[in-house]
Formats: sequence, structure tokens, C-alpha cells
Amino acid sequence: MKWVYSFGEGSGEGDASMKHLLGGKGANLAEMASLGLPVPPGFTITTEVCTAFYDNDRQYPDGLKAQVAAAIATVGAAVGRVFGDADKPLLVSVRSGARASMPGMMDTVLNLGLTDETVKGLASLAGDERFAYDSYRRFIQMYSNVVLELDHHEFEDILETYKEERDYFLDTELSADDWKSIVASYKGVVEKVRGKPFPQDPTEQIWGAIGAVFGSWRNDRAETYRRLHNIPESWGTAVNVQAMVFGNMGDTSATGVAFTRNPSTGENEYYGEFLINAQGEDVVAGIRTPQPLTKSAREAMGEEDPSLEEAMPKAYGELTAVFDKLEKHYRDMQDIEFTIQENKLWMLQTRNGKRTAKAAMKIAVDLCQEGLINREEAVLRVEPGSLDQLLHPSLDPNAPRDLVLAGLPASPGAASGEVVFSADEAERLSQEGRKVILVRVETSPEDIHGMHAAQAIVTARGGMTSHAAVVARGMGRPCVCGAGDLKIDNSGAFFTAGGRQVNKGDCVTVDGSAGKVFFGEVATMQPELSGDFATLMGWADNVRRMAVRANADTPHDAQVARNFGAQGIGLCRTEHMFFDAERIVAVREMILAEDKAGREAALAKLLPMQRSDFEDIFRVMSGLPVTVRLLDPPLHEFLPHSDDEIEEVAKSSGMDAQKLKDRAHKLQEFNPMLGHRGCRLGVSYPEIYEMQARAIVEAACTIAEETGERVTPEIMVPLVAKSEELSFLKKRIDDVASAVLKERNATLDYLVGTMIELPRAALTADEIAGDAEFFSFGTNDLTQTTFGLSRDDSASFLPDYLRRNILERDPFVTIDTQGVGALMEVAVEKGRKTRPQIKLGICGEHGGDPDSITFVENLGLDYVSCSPYRAPIARLAAAQAKLEERASSSNA
Amino acid sequence: MKWVYSFGEGSGEGDASMKHLLGGKGANLAEMASLGLPVPPGFTITTEVCTAFYDNDRQYPDGLKAQVAAAIATVGAAVGRVFGDADKPLLVSVRSGARASMPGMMDTVLNLGLTDETVKGLASLAGDERFAYDSYRRFIQMYSNVVLELDHHEFEDILETYKEERDYFLDTELSADDWKSIVASYKGVVEKVRGKPFPQDPTEQIWGAIGAVFGSWRNDRAETYRRLHNIPESWGTAVNVQAMVFGNMGDTSATGVAFTRNPSTGENEYYGEFLINAQGEDVVAGIRTPQPLTKSAREAMGEEDPSLEEAMPKAYGELTAVFDKLEKHYRDMQDIEFTIQENKLWMLQTRNGKRTAKAAMKIAVDLCQEGLINREEAVLRVEPGSLDQLLHPSLDPNAPRDLVLAGLPASPGAASGEVVFSADEAERLSQEGRKVILVRVETSPEDIHGMHAAQAIVTARGGMTSHAAVVARGMGRPCVCGAGDLKIDNSGAFFTAGGRQVNKGDCVTVDGSAGKVFFGEVATMQPELSGDFATLMGWADNVRRMAVRANADTPHDAQVARNFGAQGIGLCRTEHMFFDAERIVAVREMILAEDKAGREAALAKLLPMQRSDFEDIFRVMSGLPVTVRLLDPPLHEFLPHSDDEIEEVAKSSGMDAQKLKDRAHKLQEFNPMLGHRGCRLGVSYPEIYEMQARAIVEAACTIAEETGERVTPEIMVPLVAKSEELSFLKKRIDDVASAVLKERNATLDYLVGTMIELPRAALTADEIAGDAEFFSFGTNDLTQTTFGLSRDDSASFLPDYLRRNILERDPFVTIDTQGVGALMEVAVEKGRKTRPQIKLGICGEHGGDPDSITFVENLGLDYVSCSPYRAPIARLAAAQAKLEERASSSNA
Repeated sequence: MKWVYSFGEGSGEGDASMKHLLGGKGANLAEMASLGLPVPPGFTITTEVCTAFYDNDRQYPDGLKAQVAAAIATVGAAVGRVFGDADKPLLVSVRSGARASMPGMMDTVLNLGLTDETVKGLASLAGDERFAYDSYRRFIQMYSNVVLELDHHEFEDILETYKEERDYFLDTELSADDWKSIVASYKGVVEKVRGKPFPQDPTEQIWGAIGAVFGSWRNDRAETYRRLHNIPESWGTAVNVQAMVFGNMGDTSATGVAFTRNPSTGENEYYGEFLINAQGEDVVAGIRTPQPLTKSAREAMGEEDPSLEEAMPKAYGELTAVFDKLEKHYRDMQDIEFTIQENKLWMLQTRNGKRTAKAAMKIAVDLCQEGLINREEAVLRVEPGSLDQLLHPSLDPNAPRDLVLAGLPASPGAASGEVVFSADEAERLSQEGRKVILVRVETSPEDIHGMHAAQAIVTARGGMTSHAAVVARGMGRPCVCGAGDLKIDNSGAFFTAGGRQVNKGDCVTVDGSAGKVFFGEVATMQPELSGDFATLMGWADNVRRMAVRANADTPHDAQVARNFGAQGIGLCRTEHMFFDAERIVAVREMILAEDKAGREAALAKLLPMQRSDFEDIFRVMSGLPVTVRLLDPPLHEFLPHSDDEIEEVAKSSGMDAQKLKDRAHKLQEFNPMLGHRGCRLGVSYPEIYEMQARAIVEAACTIAEETGERVTPEIMVPLVAKSEELSFLKKRIDDVASAVLKERNATLDYLVGTMIELPRAALTADEIAGDAEFFSFGTNDLTQTTFGLSRDDSASFLPDYLRRNILERDPFVTIDTQGVGALMEVAVEKGRKTRPQIKLGICGEHGGDPDSITFVENLGLDYVSCSPYRAPIARLAAAQAKLEERASSSNA
Repeated sequence: MKWVYSFGEGSGEGDASMKHLLGGKGANLAEMASLGLPVPPGFTITTEVCTAFYDNDRQYPDGLKAQVAAAIATVGAAVGRVFGDADKPLLVSVRSGARASMPGMMDTVLNLGLTDETVKGLASLAGDERFAYDSYRRFIQMYSNVVLELDHHEFEDILETYKEERDYFLDTELSADDWKSIVASYKGVVEKVRGKPFPQDPTEQIWGAIGAVFGSWRNDRAETYRRLHNIPESWGTAVNVQAMVFGNMGDTSATGVAFTRNPSTGENEYYGEFLINAQGEDVVAGIRTPQPLTKSAREAMGEEDPSLEEAMPKAYGELTAVFDKLEKHYRDMQDIEFTIQENKLWMLQTRNGKRTAKAAMKIAVDLCQEGLINREEAVLRVEPGSLDQLLHPSLDPNAPRDLVLAGLPASPGAASGEVVFSADEAERLSQEGRKVILVRVETSPEDIHGMHAAQAIVTARGGMTSHAAVVARGMGRPCVCGAGDLKIDNSGAFFTAGGRQVNKGDCVTVDGSAGKVFFGEVATMQPELSGDFATLMGWADNVRRMAVRANADTPHDAQVARNFGAQGIGLCRTEHMFFDAERIVAVREMILAEDKAGREAALAKLLPMQRSDFEDIFRVMSGLPVTVRLLDPPLHEFLPHSDDEIEEVAKSSGMDAQKLKDRAHKLQEFNPMLGHRGCRLGVSYPEIYEMQARAIVEAACTIAEETGERVTPEIMVPLVAKSEELSFLKKRIDDVASAVLKERNATLDYLVGTMIELPRAALTADEIAGDAEFFSFGTNDLTQTTFGLSRDDSASFLPDYLRRNILERDPFVTIDTQGVGALMEVAVEKGRKTRPQIKLGICGEHGGDPDSITFVENLGLDYVSCSPYRAPIARLAAAQAKLEERASSSNA
């Protein structure tokens, strides 16, 4: 079994394709070596060793020790040194390197191999005793910290005290003898804390470091990082051991990091920083301020100290040649680490560089236009989720801020305004042209008008899929939810958070992307959607198979959706139309009616209003399909609840307060999510759905005539559990439609279908498809019922689940493929069995989640539907899903 | 195609096995004819005609008319008459006859074939003009009512007026001429209401009657009956046409109904009644009082008029010979209709007789002991659900009663007591030895002590599986739920219902089996569980494969369960133990604790109490397995809710009221059923489950030592959705158990398993079975989540579903095999794939439902668990399920 892969200038046993075995760093070191780039010789211990180590009760596999010893000898031979030799000691670095970059693990030990003996050899080889002891003290500190787990402070205190006593200010003021003293003190503290001396055997040192790398694979920080980034524990990490090169051998030496393009803007310019006479950790540690690489960057920053371009023009020239070679080779922007030892350039790392969404967009488009990649590759280069940064206003990163409150980043974007505590007040002030932030314990459908009027919403309760979050995302309003610290005073005059008080009318700024609320106004920046964005989205649309629709309830939302490239509406919720002040009276009349005749009288008042809602939406979406969901929420949502509200409504509407109260009480439910809602309302009161069907069909006829374009309403019956529910209601809808079309002497292509949002519907989709002309997966409710988990209540314990690794991802964000996804597969298969051409879509929140989009691309759905503001994300994700699907099927 | 099957004395084209084709009545008429019994000749039009009729837009199939005409001719030839002939007219009866007896359909038209002409022929043939016109007026009334759909009153009014005007009292006082007048008036009213004369063409008459029978198959009453009794619409009905025989030809004629044994008690004695000189409908109509068949019955009743045995000894002798022949032939008690025409006996119907549960039990045991059936057949003869009548006290059927309120029959049995409105008062009065009925809007876990103290429970809200219903059934308390009319006054001094007021302290009687509440005390009768009951249950236990366990939370319930033959506890809910006054303080302390240490301190107080609970239960169940479910309900159920309650608790416990309020508020949930409960509590606060595991294992060790018998606790983790939840918790439970066993130096066989009560658990049962040593199907919650239907909220709309035929049965009563059952099948298959010997049971309410028991027998579960009081039902149902399964697999 081969556990160790060597590399050195001109050749490598591995290559960049072997990341799973060698980790990212190791694979790229081997690749660079094979490319002939100047890479210090070294070797990689594979990820399989890590796996074997954990499978075998933290024992190393047989043969490893011998392979490592041989590889060290090879490295020594390449550089003319011997590991542990007193005269010509080989020093090495030991670094971790997983398949994916992973902060939180043990990072690096430099200068390994130094002992009280070998340090002398290093001093004489380098002709520089100060350099040798500086390296030794660095090694002791680093090794003691990451391998022996001593705190940094133990060492920093010694150094600080030593400097203070001697009035030294900079480390460079310390002489070789000073460092010798420091080394002695460092060794002393190690022995004191650990009870045994600092290891003087280089072999013990290297196994200590290797063990620390493997051990850190399962430390808490690494586990947390893996969970957040969906990295399987089974991948394991590799260990890279490499001959040391020294950036700290005087003024002809240096060390630095660089990007081949600007990772913030994407501009095609060299970008990076370096330090003369330093080792790698100095750049990161911030003890000295690094200088920019290029002259132009230095000038732009107004710096005096020379850039690398100026200070070491030859090495700089070699470096930029390497940049160009690597970018062409890897066909992407690279993130590089390098060291210059006595004017010779050494490459320590290269990898695809992280970048902002904006930079990703620009780099992808530029690389394509430079001919390095094709359009499909460009489409794959941008993380769809990252577009969120581009689609909403964001806080100016340079603006000062004063945090008041933190919660969940429930709906992205940033906005400022004055604090209000009621939806009515939000609406009133907004009508006066004032910008307001609506702050509530939680929101309900009665707050919709206030949420619409507000610039942003903040709630104390509720999770990422609470009412506030879902509605805010749909409206594109920034929203921070579940801010547990938020306490709204009963007086309604102020709220407190973390001991501070914020009054009604005070200005705050909400950053929905970060889940934060700041005091006062923080400057924001507007999104730009033309240029590279438009170019890349166009390329994406060309490869995409699935249509992208939006969930939109108002003409305004529909217009936003069209602007963001939505190809129809996948979910138009009709209940929001019921809350308007003028309408709610008729709605309540209907609810309080004693009989069908009374309900029909109230519904007759609602009909023209609903019809005009649909006309406005159909007009905006003219030519595109619109899926209208019939009334879904339980009726009690439309009634006032508290005694005060009831009194108020009774007074203003002339209804009997006691009757209102009785009805509200009677309609109250233990579990409204599982109650009298959805098609159950239609079964109890078919006249409600009949009114809605009439409003839809009449509006469609009117707009088709007005615009001359095709109007295609898709009438969606929610919460079907049994085919009989849909059969019962479809017949009534069809009867109404026939009647309207006869009255108008018109024709209309409309569909009747259902949401698949209950396990039973998925399990009996073959029967339901008998009447359903389309299925739209309502994955929010399907997730709630499949897990038996209320999304409004899960925020209190899901963190425990994530923390304990019981849940890897929030199932309300990404489809749980094993449970919810399994039911979707059953539904697709059974639905198509009955009706091969059945139209299939998804309109749950998952419709805007890239991973979920990949899943439904593989299921073969016809479209996804998401918030208007997520439509571009969905367009890109759907394109990528198609490309991945194509790649995997051509591989298969 | 043969649409018509003839029969007559000595032969029949059909037989008793052809009920699907000939209906019950037709098949048995053919069978009796073949047996040589005196059956008037006739024929049956098959159920296939009914199906064809409805499939073909209410048109009769080709060839039917000719076959009917030929069959009528054959009947006429057999009796020497001709249908429609003026001199020797053939008269026939037309009766419906479905596969199962079905009230609500058109029943019977007698004397068909009479017209203004043929009535004269009948008069001269019989030599009795009065008889002929009496028959004619009966025919007009009956035909007009059931075929022409005229109201009874139209005719009764004419007859009453006629009699009043002439001072007649009895019908027998009317002469032939009187009947002629009446006939004329009857025909007049028909013509007036229907706009055309009463049909004078016998062929038109017979097709009218046949059409009415087929039409009545789909009338509302028939559809309702079918829905309630799960009779498929596709079965259709047959029509029986038979030559008339006349019980109204003077004092040598009679008509009657009989049972071969007493259908009320099961005693082996002839039982029935008859009328001399009457037609069949007179016996039922109650115009004259029928006499008993036997002398002994007449004497027992103190009647003067002679019995059939005395009045017509020869016919009686023939009849009892027929009884014996039929009972031997059908091997069951028969329900018979007969007519005696001029001393000759004619058999009009036989069928297996309906009987009370008590009679069913006795008849089954007697028939077996008489050698007519074997023990397995006896076991199949008793409807398991009917045992409910035997297991609880019931109202004395003869006691007078005054209905106050009706609701759902949520828990069977009857009890009287004084009305109280709070659980505390129920407990207080009961401790004084008073019997109380607890009347509440709804109950919550805080009411448990009051429910236990009460004789019965009545609630205004909640369905058959509401908290009140479930708990009451578990405790064996009669309960009426969802009594919508019940309004409890805010004063707590009285309730009103239907305009009447019932004060606190007034006595009421609750009949939980009927869902009724009566004013005052109604006499009740106690159940008898020995004798035939014990015999039959013993036979059932011998054939049963599945074990029967009970759901029991207290030592008392456990004892009841053992007495009722339960073989273990399938569900011991631990939360009820938390509500005891002494414990709730510690529970609340735990909930209010700021950190794990605080929670552990409170849990330490609960540990000895829980341990002693388990000790008591293990002692009662010694030698049998006990499945203990770890804490399931959300924590807010243990906190007070209203401001008043909070103040009270704060005062009595010394807790901070504001802190209590804040915590209660924070724990409040939108959908508690889908909230922070079940194993989610265990994940958030593992220390709770650890305390419970310790209590269980310590108690088991103690009782095993004390009794020397095996104690087998099965520790059940509720609400698992992901295998990771169970893995996490099982490890903690096993660690605690190991620690306890080490402390005690003991060994213990215990299992750790889970409820399968969420769709996701069923779908991923293969993974869950990795850690689960048993699955117990929690079909209540599985039904709730599969349907997305809250059982506490469904009562408001399920009636709409049943009424509209969208739902055939309440899925909370009988397992929905298509949805919930499909998930159970998946779970069984996947669970066994991972762990072939996994123990499988069901502990939802369905565990006591006979149809659901049949379903899970076929799934191959190891046991069912139900309320203690339903254990005998489950034992019998499980035995029948096994027998049916065996029969169907031997047929296959």
C-alpha cells in the first residue's frame, strides 16, 4: 500500500486530479512540481492514512513509518541535507491539506528538525547565527502551540518581558544571543507546563506534527466547519512535509501571498502582498505591515516602502511569469503562497482563489472572453447562492456601524428607516413618504400591508421560514427574524436589546443578509444587474432545461419577477388579497355567515375585487403561465383575536362583538398547520373556491381580449391528501369555468392541478393525477409533515440538532433528499404513470435553493418557482444542474 | 347473458353461495327452495343488472325484459295463475335484496298485479271481496309511496277521515264496500298529485317497482348506510319477484317473523311474533300488537291472546321443523319471515340473525358445544367491536331517560354523578367519597388527576382522538366529547345545552357508548366477563398469533390490563407521572433552570419518584414486557398558561412570576404537535432521558430481585425522524444502563427502540433499525403527519368529508391502509432488511380497532397494544385476523 507520494522540481508522483488522495495542497504541489515550477522537494502522506488512523483506533497503518523515513531521506538528498544531521540539518515544514480548504484544522509547523544540536549546523550553513536561533524560537513556539497545545501567551509574555527589560521595540533589534536566551526560556516553559523537555529528536518532532494534523481533523472547530460547509468526515486530511526554504535570510529573502486577479473586483491585475526577511506566518500575523506586490498598487495606496516589483524586480518577474503559467494551466484565478530565499523564488502553494460574487462574475466572463474557458464552464464558475450579494442593496463595507441586535438572516438586503411597532402605523407613515422599519414579536397575515409599507422587518420570534421570513423574501424586503434579545415594551414606545433602548421613531439599519440591526443610518450600496451579470445570465439561460418561475402575489411582485427573468408565476397566493382593509370586512362577513346564502352574499362582494387583482397580475404576466393557489389559510387568520381587537373590529364594522368572539373562539385550533385549511375549506365551503375560480376565469378572458396574448391560468388546489378532494373540487371549478366561458362566449386554456405537500398525496399521486393536470411540490409543508416539524417552532431546537451533528442542514432550506425527496420521487413516478405528460414544478422555498434545484433537475421537474429576488439564482442554479446532469450522464 | 334466476319449491337455479349475484334474500330463497322448503315460486333479477343499469346511464341491459316476462310466465304456470289476467290474476311481491342487509333502500311492494279489473278476479277466486279490496288498497298505498314517491300521510289521512266519519275504530270494521270507496279515494289522490292515473297495466307496475328498487340503491339513506357500514357501491342490489301468498285470507291465515334463538340473550328458544289475518307489513307497522310464537313466551308475558303454538298447532309444528332444518343447514341462528295462507306455511325469507354481543357470544359457544361449528368458527362468529358492550357498565335499556346533551361516543361505558367544572374540584369531591362527572370545554394534561377522580368526562370540544377521549379510554372512564351544544357559563356555576340549564352539583348520567348525557341518574348494569365470554376468549387466544398488550400509565391501569388478558404493556407514557402535585414543582424547576446543572438538580428530585412509579408497574406486570416511552410532550404543557394560573403557581411554589411567564411565553408554540417534543427534548436536554433511563433500569433491577421474575423493560424513544437522533440517545441510555448495572452488579435484558410515528421515520426505517431493537407504530401521530391533519382540530370538518363521501372512514379510528398503511409496509420491510428479528408492534389507538388489527396481522407485526378495556376486543380481533389470514393463504 502506497501511503506517501513524493514531489520535487520537475516531477511529482501525484497531480492536481488527485485531491481526494493528496488533499488540495498536496495535489497542487505535485502538479506545480511536474510543471517545472520551483517547488521545494517534499512528500504528501495521503488522506487514506487519516481514514485508516481513525478506523483503527488512532493507530497508523503498517508500512507508513518506513515510507515516511524513505521520503525524508529522498528530500534530504535533493537539497543536500540530512534530517537530524548536526552539520547539514534538513529542516521541513509540516502542513495539513484536506480535499477542500478547511480553516480550523492544524495549519502549519515550520522549521521542524531544529534541535539544540542542529541549530548550530543551520547557523554555520547559513553563516548567520541570528537567523538560526530566530528560526529555532519560531519552531519551538509553533510546535509547542499546535502539537503540544501550549497557549501562545506563554511564549509571547516571555518575549514581551525580555524586550521591555531591554528597551527593545522591534524583533529585528534582537541579536543572536538574545534569541538564544529566548530559546532557553521557551524550552523552560515547555518543560514546566508539559512536565518533560522540548523534544530534541527530529523524528519524534515529525511524528508529533503528523499526529497533530490527523488529530485536528476531528477537533471541534474542524467539525463545525465541515458541518457548515457540508464536507463529509470520511474525506480525511493529508499531511504535507516539505523541505524548508527561508524568507527570513536577510534582505534578499521575502515571503508573500498573491492572487492572479483582484479577488474583490475581479479586475485582471496582480494582487498580493509580501514581507522582506520574514517567514510565512509573519504576513498573516500582522506584526509587520506587508507591502503590495505591484508598483501601481503601492502608488494607489500612497505607500512609501517599495513594492516587490521595485524591490526585487528579477524575482517579481519570475513570479508574474508563474502567475500567467498557473492561470493558463488551471484556467482560473489562483491564490498563491511563495517564498524568496536569497533572490530565488519558491512556490509553496497554489489553489483556485476565493472571490466575491461580483469578482466571480467578472472573472468567469473575462476568462471566457480571453478564450481560457467556454461559456458553459463560465456558467459553472459562479456559485448561484452568492448572487444574493448582488441582487439586493448591501451595506457599504467601509461605513461605520453600531450593532443593536442580531438574529437570523431571514431575507437579504439592507435598508434604514424609523422604528415602528404596528403594521397600521407602518402603512400610515409610509403613506406620508417616511421610511419605516417594522419591528414585531412575530408577524401574521394581518401585518402584510405593514410589511409591504416597511423598508425592512425585524421580529423577535420565528425561524428562517417563519411567516415574516417567507413573506419578506417574497416581497424582497430585508428581514431579521428570531432576534431573541429583542423585547418590545408593552407600552409600544420602545424596544430593548442587550440593555439598550431604541425608541419608536429612532432610525435603525437592517442588514438582512447578515441578520443584524444597527443603530442609526448605515450607508448602503445599490446592486448592478447589467454588464457581466447580464452576460453570464444569458449564457446560463441558454443551457438551462427547467423553466424558472416566481412566487408573486401582487402586480408589483409580478413585475419584479419579470424583471428578474421569471418565466411565469409558480405560486400566486390569493389570501394576501383578502387582508386589504376594504376586503377584510367582506371576508369576515363571509366567515360569520350562518349559512351558504350568507356566505355567497359576502363572496359576491369579494368577486369583483379578486377579479381585478387577477386582471392586474395577468396583464403584467401576459403571455406567461400563472399558477393561482386557491384560498389556503385557516379562516381564523382573518378574524381579530384579542378582546381589544375584537371590540375594535366590532365597532368599526358594526358586527356583533360577542358573535365575532364566539366565532373566533370556535375557529381557534391547536395545530393550525394541520387544521381546517387548504382544500378542506373548499370541501366545507365550495362557494369560496367557486368565487375564486370565477374571478380567475373572468379575469383571464378580459386580459386575453385586452392584450391579444395568451393567458394561461393554472388553478391550484392546496393541501390535497386524497384524490377524492381534488375530484370534488375540480368538478366545481370546471363547472364554473364552463359557465363563465359560455356567458362570455370565449375559450380559454386553463389547467386544474394540485400542490403535493402532504405525504399522503405523494404516496397516492397516481390516483390524484387522475384529476390533476399539474403537480406543484409544496416542499415547505411537505417537509413539515414528513419530519413532523413545524417550521415556525423549529428555531428553538434546530441549533441543538446542528450542533450535535444530528442534522447536517436545515431541511427547510435544502430539500431532505432521503425523506422528503424520496416522497417526491414516488409522486413523480406515480403521477407520470397515470398521466405521462403531467406538468411538474416546485413552489416551496426550496425552489430558490441551488442544491434543491440540482435535486429537482435530476427528478426531471418542468420548472422551479421561487421568490422574485431569487429568480436569477434559480436561473443560474438550474443551468448548472443541467450541465452537471449532462456531465454525469455522459460519464455514465 | 343470464339476468334472471328462478326458484320454486324443490328447486332453485341459484343457491346460498351466490349472494354476490342474487343478493342475500334471493340466494337464500333459492337455497330454501332447493332444500324442499315451502317457498312461493319466483325469480331474482341479478345484481349485475343493477351494475349494468348504472354503468349504462340507467338503461336496462338487452334481453332483460324478455327474461323477466318468461320468468313471470313460469311463476304463473307454477301457481295456476296468469299475470294481468282478469279471472285468475297472478299477484307478486317485489323486494330489494343486496348482498348485505341494507336498510334505507326500497323494501317491498306487495300485491303487485292488482288493477280495477284483476281485483274482481281475485275477489271471486278467494270468494272474499273484502280481502280483495283490502289487498288492492294496500297495494295502491305501498306502490304509490315507494314507486311514485307519494307521502304516507296522503293515504293515512283519507283512511282516518273515512273511519272518523263512520265511527270506525279498527280496520277490521271496514267492509268490502268501504275498501272500494277508499280505493277510489286513493286513486284520486294519486292522479291529483302525480297528474296521471294510478297505473292499470300490471307490466307497467312491475317495471315501476323494479326501477324503484334499482333507483333506491343510490338514494341518500342507502348511501349513508353503505358509508357507515363500508359496503361498496359497486356491489349493487338484486330484485326478487315472488308469487304472493296471503296471510290476510281470514283466521286460518297469518304472517310473522321469527328467530331460531333469542337474539337478545342467545338462549336456545324459539323467538318471534305473528298476526292472524294480516300481511307482512302489519307486523312491522305496529297497527295491531303481534302475539308471541310460543305458549311459554305468551305466559311469561302474561298475554291472553293465543300464541301460534296454540292457535295453529299444525302450522307451528311445520314452522319449528323448518327452524331446526334451517339452523342445521346454515349452522347459525336464523332470522325468518313466514306467511300462513289458509293453514299452509310459506317461507318468505331466512338469513343469519342479528344479535346482541351477549347473544352472539352465547350462540357461538352453544353452537360449538352442540357440534354444529368448531371452535375456530365460533371465534369468527362474534364481532370484536361488539364486545365493547360487554366490557363496560351500560344503561339499563328499560330505565327511563331525559336527554340533555349529545356528542361523540368517545369512551364507552355509563356512569352517573354530580356535575363539576374543574379537575381540582373533581378530585376534592371524589376524596370525600362523592361521585362526580367532570365537564370541561376541553381537557389538557393538567386535568389528568380530575379525570381520574371523575366517574366520566364530558367536553364541548375535541374529536374521538382528542386528549379527553384518548385519556378517558385509557382509564376506562366513559367520555362524551365534542358536545357542540355545551356552553359552560363563565361563572363556573352551570352549563347550558339546548336551552336547558344544568347546575354544578346536579346529577347527570353519561352514556359514553352512545355519546349522550342524561339528566338525573339512569340505572346501569355491570358487565359479566366469565362464562361464555371466558370460554370464547380462551378459544380465541389459542388461535391468535400476535400478542396483545395494553397502553397503561399507572399500576391501576396495568392491573386492569392484566385482568383483561393483556400480555404486557405496549405503551407506558411517562409524562402523566409528571403532573402529580408533588412532582410538578420539580418539573417546573427543571424547565426554569438556567443551565444543565440546574436541570440536573431538579431531575435528581424526580428520579426517586419516577423509579417508584416504574417499580409499581413492573411489579404488577412481573414476567411480562413493559414498553416505556420517554418524555414526549412539549415542556410548555407543564407550565401554567393564564396570568392567574401563573400568579397562583408563583405564589405557591415561591418561583418568580415574571420568570415563569417569560419562560411559558418563550416555550409557546404555533403547532405544538410539530414542535419541541419527543426525542427533540432528549436531544436538547439529554439529562432528562438519562434520568428516566436510570429510573427504569434501577426499578427493573429492584423488582427482578424482589419477585425473582424476569423484568423486561423496552425503552422507547418517541418522535424519531432521523436515525441520528436515536443513535445519539441510545448511546446515552446504554451508558446509563451500564452504569446502573455496574453499580448494582446486576444483569438485565432491556431493549432500546423507537416509535415509528413520522413519515420520515418510516421512509428511513432501514437506517433507524441500525440502532432500534424494536419499532412500535405510533399510528395516531403517523396519521396526523401523513394526512397533515390534526386530530384535535379535525372534528370541525371531518363530518363534511364523510357527508361528501370524500372520506369513507375516520382515519384516526381505522388505519388508512393506502397512505399510512403504505408507510407502515415500507417501515416493516426496511426495518427487517437491516434487522431481520426486529420486534414490531403498534401502540396507536388503532391497536384496538379490529379492521386495523387485521391489517397489521397481514403486515406480520408481533403485537398490538391498546387501551386496557379494549384488550379483549384486540384478542378476539387478532384471533380472527389470524384465521382469515390462514384461510386466504390456503385459498391462494
